[in-house]
Amino acid sequence: MTEKQFVYFFGGGSAEGRADMKDLLGGKGANLAEMTNLEVPVPPGFTISTEVCDIYSKNNNQYPAGLEEEVERNLSKLEDLMGKKLGDPDNPLLVSVRSGSAVSMPGMMDTVLNLGTNDQSVGGLEKMSGNKRFAWDSYRRFIQMFGNVVMGVGHEDYEKVLDDQKEKKGVKLDTDLTARDLMEVMDGYKKLYREKTGEDFPQDPREQLWKSIDAVFGSWNNPRAVKYRAINDIKGLLGTAVNVQTMVFGNSGEDCSTGVCFTRDPSTGEHKYFYGEYLINAQGEDVVAGTRTPQQITIQGSREWAASMKISEAERKKKYPSLEESMPECFKKLDVFRVKMEKHYKDMQDMEFTIDKGTLYMLQTRTGKRTAQSAVKIAVDMEKEGLIDKKTAVMRVPPGQLDQFLHPMIDPDAAVEVIGTGLPASPGAAVGEIVFTAKEAEEEAGKGKNVILVRVETSPEDIGGMNVAEGILTARGGMTSHAAVVARGMGKCCVAGCSDLHIPNELECEIGGEKFKKGEMITLNGTTGEVIKGRVKLIDPDPTHGEFAELMKWADEFRTLRVRTNADTPQDAANARKLGAEGIGLCRTEHMFFEGDRVNTVREMILSEDEAGRRKALKKLLPMQQGDFEGIFEVMDGLPVTIRLLDPPLHEFLPQKDEDIEALAKKMGVTYDKLKKKVESLHEFNPMLGHRGCRLGITYPEIYETQVEAIFLAACNVQKKGIKVEPEVMIPLIGTVKEFSILREMTVKIAEKVMKEKNTDVKYLVGTMIEIPRAVLVADRIAEEAEFFSFGTNDLTQLAFGYSRDDAGVFLSDYINSGILEKDPFQELDQEGVGQLVKTGIEKGRKTKKDLKIGICGEHGGDPNSVDFCHGAGMNYVSCSPFRIPIARLAAAQARIKREKT
Amino acid sequence: MTEKQFVYFFGGGSAEGRADMKDLLGGKGANLAEMTNLEVPVPPGFTISTEVCDIYSKNNNQYPAGLEEEVERNLSKLEDLMGKKLGDPDNPLLVSVRSGSAVSMPGMMDTVLNLGTNDQSVGGLEKMSGNKRFAWDSYRRFIQMFGNVVMGVGHEDYEKVLDDQKEKKGVKLDTDLTARDLMEVMDGYKKLYREKTGEDFPQDPREQLWKSIDAVFGSWNNPRAVKYRAINDIKGLLGTAVNVQTMVFGNSGEDCSTGVCFTRDPSTGEHKYFYGEYLINAQGEDVVAGTRTPQQITIQGSREWAASMKISEAERKKKYPSLEESMPECFKKLDVFRVKMEKHYKDMQDMEFTIDKGTLYMLQTRTGKRTAQSAVKIAVDMEKEGLIDKKTAVMRVPPGQLDQFLHPMIDPDAAVEVIGTGLPASPGAAVGEIVFTAKEAEEEAGKGKNVILVRVETSPEDIGGMNVAEGILTARGGMTSHAAVVARGMGKCCVAGCSDLHIPNELECEIGGEKFKKGEMITLNGTTGEVIKGRVKLIDPDPTHGEFAELMKWADEFRTLRVRTNADTPQDAANARKLGAEGIGLCRTEHMFFEGDRVNTVREMILSEDEAGRRKALKKLLPMQQGDFEGIFEVMDGLPVTIRLLDPPLHEFLPQKDEDIEALAKKMGVTYDKLKKKVESLHEFNPMLGHRGCRLGITYPEIYETQVEAIFLAACNVQKKGIKVEPEVMIPLIGTVKEFSILREMTVKIAEKVMKEKNTDVKYLVGTMIEIPRAVLVADRIAEEAEFFSFGTNDLTQLAFGYSRDDAGVFLSDYINSGILEKDPFQELDQEGVGQLVKTGIEKGRKTKKDLKIGICGEHGGDPNSVDFCHGAGMNYVSCSPFRIPIARLAAAQARIKREKT
Repeated sequence: MTEKQFVYFFGGGSAEGRADMKDLLGGKGANLAEMTNLEVPVPPGFTISTEVCDIYSKNNNQYPAGLEEEVERNLSKLEDLMGKKLGDPDNPLLVSVRSGSAVSMPGMMDTVLNLGTNDQSVGGLEKMSGNKRFAWDSYRRFIQMFGNVVMGVGHEDYEKVLDDQKEKKGVKLDTDLTARDLMEVMDGYKKLYREKTGEDFPQDPREQLWKSIDAVFGSWNNPRAVKYRAINDIKGLLGTAVNVQTMVFGNSGEDCSTGVCFTRDPSTGEHKYFYGEYLINAQGEDVVAGTRTPQQITIQGSREWAASMKISEAERKKKYPSLEESMPECFKKLDVFRVKMEKHYKDMQDMEFTIDKGTLYMLQTRTGKRTAQSAVKIAVDMEKEGLIDKKTAVMRVPPGQLDQFLHPMIDPDAAVEVIGTGLPASPGAAVGEIVFTAKEAEEEAGKGKNVILVRVETSPEDIGGMNVAEGILTARGGMTSHAAVVARGMGKCCVAGCSDLHIPNELECEIGGEKFKKGEMITLNGTTGEVIKGRVKLIDPDPTHGEFAELMKWADEFRTLRVRTNADTPQDAANARKLGAEGIGLCRTEHMFFEGDRVNTVREMILSEDEAGRRKALKKLLPMQQGDFEGIFEVMDGLPVTIRLLDPPLHEFLPQKDEDIEALAKKMGVTYDKLKKKVESLHEFNPMLGHRGCRLGITYPEIYETQVEAIFLAACNVQKKGIKVEPEVMIPLIGTVKEFSILREMTVKIAEKVMKEKNTDVKYLVGTMIEIPRAVLVADRIAEEAEFFSFGTNDLTQLAFGYSRDDAGVFLSDYINSGILEKDPFQELDQEGVGQLVKTGIEKGRKTKKDLKIGICGEHGGDPNSVDFCHGAGMNYVSCSPFRIPIARLAAAQARIKREKT
Repeated sequence: MTEKQFVYFFGGGSAEGRADMKDLLGGKGANLAEMTNLEVPVPPGFTISTEVCDIYSKNNNQYPAGLEEEVERNLSKLEDLMGKKLGDPDNPLLVSVRSGSAVSMPGMMDTVLNLGTNDQSVGGLEKMSGNKRFAWDSYRRFIQMFGNVVMGVGHEDYEKVLDDQKEKKGVKLDTDLTARDLMEVMDGYKKLYREKTGEDFPQDPREQLWKSIDAVFGSWNNPRAVKYRAINDIKGLLGTAVNVQTMVFGNSGEDCSTGVCFTRDPSTGEHKYFYGEYLINAQGEDVVAGTRTPQQITIQGSREWAASMKISEAERKKKYPSLEESMPECFKKLDVFRVKMEKHYKDMQDMEFTIDKGTLYMLQTRTGKRTAQSAVKIAVDMEKEGLIDKKTAVMRVPPGQLDQFLHPMIDPDAAVEVIGTGLPASPGAAVGEIVFTAKEAEEEAGKGKNVILVRVETSPEDIGGMNVAEGILTARGGMTSHAAVVARGMGKCCVAGCSDLHIPNELECEIGGEKFKKGEMITLNGTTGEVIKGRVKLIDPDPTHGEFAELMKWADEFRTLRVRTNADTPQDAANARKLGAEGIGLCRTEHMFFEGDRVNTVREMILSEDEAGRRKALKKLLPMQQGDFEGIFEVMDGLPVTIRLLDPPLHEFLPQKDEDIEALAKKMGVTYDKLKKKVESLHEFNPMLGHRGCRLGITYPEIYETQVEAIFLAACNVQKKGIKVEPEVMIPLIGTVKEFSILREMTVKIAEKVMKEKNTDVKYLVGTMIEIPRAVLVADRIAEEAEFFSFGTNDLTQLAFGYSRDDAGVFLSDYINSGILEKDPFQELDQEGVGQLVKTGIEKGRKTKKDLKIGICGEHGGDPNSVDFCHGAGMNYVSCSPFRIPIARLAAAQARIKREKT
């Protein structure tokens, strides 16, 4: 066959595909092939490659020539292997049709099960299974799923037909409906199908198959999938593959079951027992959808689960026995595959299995999603177990996920009123206002509020809202429910399946019998599963020990990029040092101006009529600021401290509202008119582009002079105590060479004067922020005098895009949703645009001064992709908030390792 | 002599220098040499070259080796030639020491006269002149000038000594003091000198000479000189030369005089009579300083002057006879030199002469400063006279000066209340608030006010204030006074020597007996010399005929850069076409939104709850906007019209103050709360960086859709009338490729729809503003779809510098004064920074699309240096306000010619 191969068979102990063919076969297809080759009992089938998806998308939904014949050939092979025929009235082959791209996207792509059932073959199914109800339920599920996924008939329309039948029959549960009842439901379904689609439900299995394949390929570009890829930054894929696979049934009787399991605990990373959930007499969808409460795989797991749910051992054994108890033989086989799979893939696996009449089938294995804790623990454990090396371990943990690891926890000393308990689905803690829909979540978060998304269960439509919520609370679903899986992936706190929660409508809910309205505050503890009333104090974790510290140590061994912190107080500085900061990259002096009563002195300075008056007030501020610097220098002993001179416009220190002006005037003993006049005279239409930064230093030299004096008085005093001080004076908002020359000269003059007076010689640097585009353009000339550059990519982003951070929220979400921007450029450095400026600035700066020290300060310094960019661009350091230092350290290590490899 | 020559002798009929050695000898030195070689009677002397100044400045005020000897040699030569000796008690040589750089800087550099007088030689001077009073007055002037210029003793301190003496003697005028009185003054002067300098006045003429030379070289870097060079963009000079020249005296008796004359009228350019002023028995400084009322050179000139001053012919003849009358022989010789000099230099000359006891000496000739009218007329006349060619004529007129030519004149129909009359020192008209000091002028102008600087007389210290004033009014001084010369150079309206003006202090003045305070409004007519009370209506001149039109025609022949206009109405467009616009480069659609009642419909649109409501309001706006476009297309028949879609944020259309909101709410029939809420919801912290431009087009597509529909409906309608329409739709504020793609697609879709409906095919382009730095960085990708780029350098400057135009005034003047910025970057394109962005944008755009049409719109499009930059950067066109079109045309021609030459 000289033609290109589009379809790859697996089954009968061997497969045409392999694990390393993910790009072509998708993750699922490649793994099914690999598992088949590993002699794992996988239901046979075939995979239509992602190339077909690409051709289909680009070719106006036309398949490549010859595909139909190739599918037909593979289907025949499958029928031969299984000894069944698609649509056969006596011995029908049923297949599933599933999507699967190279990167796992849970719940985003569509799936059709039980394909091949029709009015004839349903009889064959009944015959084969000896279970009429099962046969009709399978048929019902098929038409419902096919109608929904392939033809867009609303899920709720089907549910209504089913509910009407239940009401008619006076029963509560689906399972209470008999085979005959279900046959009536089928009539309703078919009628519904005809009404909604204008055609009859297709009886021809070939038509069913092709329509399903079309739907899977078509779903690659549905808005949810596109959005998921945007949020998760998934790029460069051809498309999804389609897996057509023999159906096995976990729901054809009480000797059947289906489940999901992880080779290690995806929440904690622990390896103490086999972690997983299953449901007896159910299909796989039932486990993931969270509509029934799943049971545990192991006895130990089951017992712990029951304890957390306050279920007695007797009730547990009766109602929720573990697989180890209910199907011990299958459990043993499963446990063997668990070990085999992890050894083979050298990573924690997420496996789906089905037990069909006592026979175990593995449906899928893939790299399991995990929490940060789990990721770290698994990576470090596996290194210790000899499965992977240190570099691999370091590469295994997505740095952004550490955010979750480092997230605040509930203060153990806080008094908490627990109003409900659910599953600890994703660890950490979150405080926020209740919202009931993803839309509300996006709206309120857009206003800057912290929200907790409270839902019966979540679905892929909720992705946007989940992404902006602080935490997620659901009434239904297990640890592998949509909410739990997605929340862990996002590093968000989640309590799932909280049976104390009832949501009658989208305006209020009941938790533990108490009513809560939209906007009321609750706290979630994702580590314990507790739901707590009101706002509870959260505290930062101490990530200085255990596996985390170990992994960080390894990261530090590999990285070359230094990581500094943004810190304005000795407390912050100490905290940052603990988290691994190698210096302060940004100490904002204005924060000190706001502290306590000082702001009154600052105001006195601003209200002064002349330089003499300003100097008088500044003289009072000097010892205060000196004290701050001394505190910071002491903490940072031996590490550099970059101090930025005053940056914000002066009006930020004055009130704006009339009543506040009046109050302050009274307090300061000046007239309202005088104060009001000053406030008005300082008003700016665009403060971001106004009289701030070094512009203040030029027009009011006394301000910067005082600050520099305070820095060097502090440095001399602290150094005299035998502490090593490395001040780096940083001039903000430089746009012209001369601004820097003037202010550098001032700094040097005062530094030398103070050091002479103090008879101390402090090693110091004078450098500049590069945050104005024009500074980039003249960076070669600035570098003639500057001893370091620190890219202020916050302002640089504002100016490069012409976006005000304070205002852009109005259109930025529209821009991201419509794909104009891939990411919020304030969160992740825009490499295409702003990145060019940064690179140009570095190039020009280093052209003048080969070894110019260059760093970045601001939000981007703690964003993994941005850190990767900074490493690639040749910076010496990044500086970020204390809390994000481990993220930056890990990202820096990965940036280095990645470049070694290529 | 193998050493480098630093000193160049002139005199005795030949000189070592030449006219083309300006860079080395300065303008004055080169001209003195040239005049000497041309056998013009120049007092002999020698020039110390600008290289010495450069060495002196760079070498810590040390002269090159050998200079002293070289000066000594030349001095001996001079003494030999003159038969006198420096400091000789019987027959003393007196010299002047003057600065002179390659570019004329009137009044900026310092001068010492009568050098060589001392207690001994004053006797020789008396003997030679037979005038004891003259001798002592010369000595007095010398010590005063030397003390002031060389040693920094205050002019006012000397004046006090002089005034005390006058008081003691009971006389009013200096000239009433006798020789004996002056000897006493000298004692006072010497005492003052000792007090202020701590040393005795140097009697040694060599010491006098060297200290004076030091002072001239030192003055090159005094702040005034530095500022003058900054304002006038004078760069790349080595320094000033020093001219040491034999003194001749216009003040040694009634048969002596001194004067300044121009070969053509520097105000009108007319060639009808010999234009100049002189004073009998005076030194040159007296003419320029404006302390005495000068007399005219010709009889005709004198008569016209007297008429304007309301002086009778009898009085004129008696008190103010012309040189033609008072010294007819000298006048004849002077007239011969006038013709000779102009023929030789092929440009209008400004000449200084002195008549010493009946003998005419030419002290200086240089290219005369002139008004725009005069510059244009002289250039065109000289071409007709065959003196110069067309290119030279085009190069002769500084484009910026045309501003003055094109400036508003007083409406001839306006009722004016003339309160005073002075000399028509610089034409045009100006309206503004009175200020009395240069500092006030800078402050008030900084607040955006139009000011008239009202002074007794101006001095070089006032340069900054004169530069920002609309017009200048002085009480004293003639047509060649400092105020007049500088104002003409700056192209500013000036009324000088207004004897109706009295200024008792810096708070108020009297004009024609009426009191005026600071801040009161007056109007100046610089063409007639009238001072008018209050604000008078000004009208634009019609520069479509005469020499101006001729020069413009020549400019158009040479230039390749197209010149378009910024125009929003058919009226503006028609006016611009008259001034030579070759299309519209920027038609702002928002201005149309404000017109008349329309803003109410715009507000209705903004207040709509949803898209449907907005569309309803927009439907009402559509025909209005369509009508605007039709009007503009009709006027611009055959020329391209670039229409920018809506740019400002929506809140600009709503009131901001509570009372205005209340009034509008009432008018619109909505509640105050609703309107207030909308206003608040649209509030932005930094509107410049907010929800505007294409961001509106993305979030409210209906707005841009309506505008595009209006454009194409208009285009089709007008084209159907047989008028040629070339619309260019311009999308503002593009920062990402996708914004442009989306809006371009929308534009094309609607354009095609409308054209199909109207069954008309209009040729159109879709392009973008490049005004966001990020757009520059991705210009290569934007150019894949854009059909033209128009650089919006206003916003690009704001974003590149991080300056808000609305706020930067607070620090911008400080920045310019302290030399951080050479120029206001909003007035002249910052080539160092913003220019790099423009060049990068052009480069990237043309890399993708070789022939991409590129222009600039905004203020810079009418600034000569910026136009030069645009030509050099390879743009296709500039677009500027109608009023600046001739400036841009001329600047474009000069840019081309300049590059041809090099």
